[in-house]
Amino acid sequence: MADKIRVTVWNEFRHEKVHEAVAKVYPEGIHQQIARFLSANPDMTVRTATLDEPEHGLTQDVLEATDVLIWWGHMAHREVKDEVVDRVQQRILNGMGLIVLHSGHFSKIFRRMMGTNCSLKWREAGERERLWVVDPGHPIAAGLGPYFELPHTEMYGEFFDIPQPDALIFISWFQGGEVFRSGVAYHRGKGKVFYFRPGHETFPIYYDPNVQKVITNAVRWAAPVAGPYTDLSKAPNVEAIEKFTVEE
Amino acid sequence: MADKIRVTVWNEFRHEKVHEAVAKVYPEGIHQQIARFLSANPDMTVRTATLDEPEHGLTQDVLEATDVLIWWGHMAHREVKDEVVDRVQQRILNGMGLIVLHSGHFSKIFRRMMGTNCSLKWREAGERERLWVVDPGHPIAAGLGPYFELPHTEMYGEFFDIPQPDALIFISWFQGGEVFRSGVAYHRGKGKVFYFRPGHETFPIYYDPNVQKVITNAVRWAAPVAGPYTDLSKAPNVEAIEKFTVEE
Amino acid sequence: MADKIRVTVWNEFRHEKVHEAVAKVYPEGIHQQIARFLSANPDMTVRTATLDEPEHGLTQDVLEATDVLIWWGHMAHREVKDEVVDRVQQRILNGMGLIVLHSGHFSKIFRRMMGTNCSLKWREAGERERLWVVDPGHPIAAGLGPYFELPHTEMYGEFFDIPQPDALIFISWFQGGEVFRSGVAYHRGKGKVFYFRPGHETFPIYYDPNVQKVITNAVRWAAPVAGPYTDLSKAPNVEAIEKFTVEE
Amino acid sequence: MADKIRVTVWNEFRHEKVHEAVAKVYPEGIHQQIARFLSANPDMTVRTATLDEPEHGLTQDVLEATDVLIWWGHMAHREVKDEVVDRVQQRILNGMGLIVLHSGHFSKIFRRMMGTNCSLKWREAGERERLWVVDPGHPIAAGLGPYFELPHTEMYGEFFDIPQPDALIFISWFQGGEVFRSGVAYHRGKGKVFYFRPGHETFPIYYDPNVQKVITNAVRWAAPVAGPYTDLSKAPNVEAIEKFTVEE
Repeated sequence: MADKIRVTVWNEFRHEKVHEAVAKVYPEGIHQQIARFLSANPDMTVRTATLDEPEHGLTQDVLEATDVLIWWGHMAHREVKDEVVDRVQQRILNGMGLIVLHSGHFSKIFRRMMGTNCSLKWREAGERERLWVVDPGHPIAAGLGPYFELPHTEMYGEFFDIPQPDALIFISWFQGGEVFRSGVAYHRGKGKVFYFRPGHETFPIYYDPNVQKVITNAVRWAAPVAGPYTDLSKAPNVEAIEKFTVEE
Repeated sequence: MADKIRVTVWNEFRHEKVHEAVAKVYPEGIHQQIARFLSANPDMTVRTATLDEPEHGLTQDVLEATDVLIWWGHMAHREVKDEVVDRVQQRILNGMGLIVLHSGHFSKIFRRMMGTNCSLKWREAGERERLWVVDPGHPIAAGLGPYFELPHTEMYGEFFDIPQPDALIFISWFQGGEVFRSGVAYHRGKGKVFYFRPGHETFPIYYDPNVQKVITNAVRWAAPVAGPYTDLSKAPNVEAIEKFTVEE
Repeated sequence: MADKIRVTVWNEFRHEKVHEAVAKVYPEGIHQQIARFLSANPDMTVRTATLDEPEHGLTQDVLEATDVLIWWGHMAHREVKDEVVDRVQQRILNGMGLIVLHSGHFSKIFRRMMGTNCSLKWREAGERERLWVVDPGHPIAAGLGPYFELPHTEMYGEFFDIPQPDALIFISWFQGGEVFRSGVAYHRGKGKVFYFRPGHETFPIYYDPNVQKVITNAVRWAAPVAGPYTDLSKAPNVEAIEKFTVEE
Repeated sequence: MADKIRVTVWNEFRHEKVHEAVAKVYPEGIHQQIARFLSANPDMTVRTATLDEPEHGLTQDVLEATDVLIWWGHMAHREVKDEVVDRVQQRILNGMGLIVLHSGHFSKIFRRMMGTNCSLKWREAGERERLWVVDPGHPIAAGLGPYFELPHTEMYGEFFDIPQPDALIFISWFQGGEVFRSGVAYHRGKGKVFYFRPGHETFPIYYDPNVQKVITNAVRWAAPVAGPYTDLSKAPNVEAIEKFTVEE
């Protein structure tokens, strides 16, 4: 139990309540579907948290007991409190993994971690997407073929305003003529961040086996490694390790 | 004139007024010394701005007339207003270069652009620093030898909590036993960011010819390139470029 | 004159002699068309070299008088002598820029510089290609819009077996369903390498104004910067810079 | 057994036979000491190979049964046959991990994979080295403190002529005034490459617990991930995935 990866799936959990079309695809919320397929892995233990819980369900205690946080947000990015964003950022820099899905590109936490606008072009036309693997040795691509397809998607197109990733793993092709860097991985502080484009509130993306495989791989990749840093937010004044004399 | 690089040197301009030792080295302020050596370049036109001016001297008009902004801050990072930080960030993402010096590592704008704490270890012991060039083909290293030395410096040591840079140009050696990634370059949006470690308010670092050469090179590297994007903060809904039919 | 960028355009210059269709598009050879549009830039001086000249036209003298070498090869990669490849590699590592075009992905010199197979998928169907700018602040993208199109091209598709680039500037979309990293930039030693996908022996790619703009930008980016290293091939035994005593 | 990581430790195994000082530290050869501490890990199975075996002990069969190859060479780099280097390169690009130690920087296989000279400065003065962790979330740094020390080492100094790594994990400080990028990680094809500086034939570096921890971590990081590519050396002509018509 102690060695399991502790995953928290966060969902703003709004459009499932408002739009019937969404509730039809994700009757218990997107977070429950993600939690469901991740829970099938014996090396993971999964909980969920949502926007309308106190402190959005992301108290300091929850974050300290979280190895990897998965983030879904869409309609209500602005309602996420800045102090929770601060807290999540510090937890990432101290080692927690963050996996941001689809419309989470515009979440406060992703924009905070990237330092850029994370803007992009988009279109809802139900077109076909083909995700090409461009880093086939990366653990997040394990078990995939040269590409996989999603038959009906919302298009996201370049320019995607993100820092050049430490690893670019997927590039998407869309019927309408666009491309997109769909899987991008970053080290930040002691933690890791992975953004994965696929996802939608009415297309059943999180039932797709390849999408599930990528998210599962990403959880394992993003889990913290053991190490020495307990707080990276301070700039300590330190004694010299080596003796030396200052020459005039 | 139109083709000159328009540089704005920003200084919080506080310790020069408070500490006699600082005023002795930089009687008109650190910004004036930086502006002085940059102004000697015929391809640059230089102005200055300081914290205590209205809007910190960084109005929208000033930023739009700035190609490269140089940032010095130390004592008063917290006094910089968030709306000015927002404005500077957007101007960078739309093409302006930002050069952050020394203690500016803890400025709001650098932490904003990096998404990390930008923390480090430090010591004021007047020790020797040797900056090694590790990307000798980079334009910021143009004209330098394999390394250069600064006889008396404040030490900054790793771990420096920054994203892996797009280019790592300098690594510092310190007498006391530490190393530091002293020159790191990033592309962000349409703009560029360069952090350069050397600098101090009482050691006469900005009189050093190699330091001046690096900052001069960095201004040329960070100047905007022509291009199409006027606003990267929006996520526009777009029409398909290619015709297609959605198959059921 | 001394400050001009000295460009050498290399072409194996074979299919122009063998295939009428090629000779129709490039009657004097692909190298002459590239030399023609580059020569229009007042800051460049351009010469050419071809496979069947002695030492393939790439003597030590020619290389030392070359700032940027442009490489086109297709049918006769194997005929390029290994000692010339060695010589070109050393000249790059000592500061010369290399721009590899289209089918040059399989040239000995590109594979040597990359350390990988540089393999890819391909198809000659005359389909449309759309090159998206994904690093809009990079000097190689200067003056371009968000994307540009080539109406009829040979397709190159992922996986493209190259190292992750230092900067990824263009991603291509193809009608047939593939994507490709079409503009990739590397620092190697003191030199720089840029691979650019567009090009073909019968489609008139090098008459396209956007393609010409990219190659022109790339020449300026790849030109050497001043610096100290004259030979990076040796591992010198050096004296200590700092005095120290070895403790038992 | 099937799930164990299959490690092959390669040693040119020459100076142990020639120099008494080396034989004293590594009586059975450096490879046997490395094999010894790796064998203590229940998830690894370890064999060795040496230069003077037929085909240097690296037949196609051995390579196909190797997940991670560790490379030590020093005196006899030139004696390694080019066809074996070719074979090892292809095996790496198809997924095998390669860990290159210390003087292996000048091996044919490392220079082949990097595309650069891999030259550096060096000095044998028995000085102290301190390796700083600069990517504390990287799995290769797992379990280490902010730095570790080696009391007596051969110095390697910058400029180290390597491509900018995909991840820079360690930077070394030396008493004599140099710095060095001591732990650098690369993805190449489907495989991974890690270079690690520490090591020497007479200083007992491979008995050091931190050095052993890094090499052990690196084996796990470099082990292949499952995936689809069986041969990345070919450039196949492919049919279009999407139907399209070419417009005149």
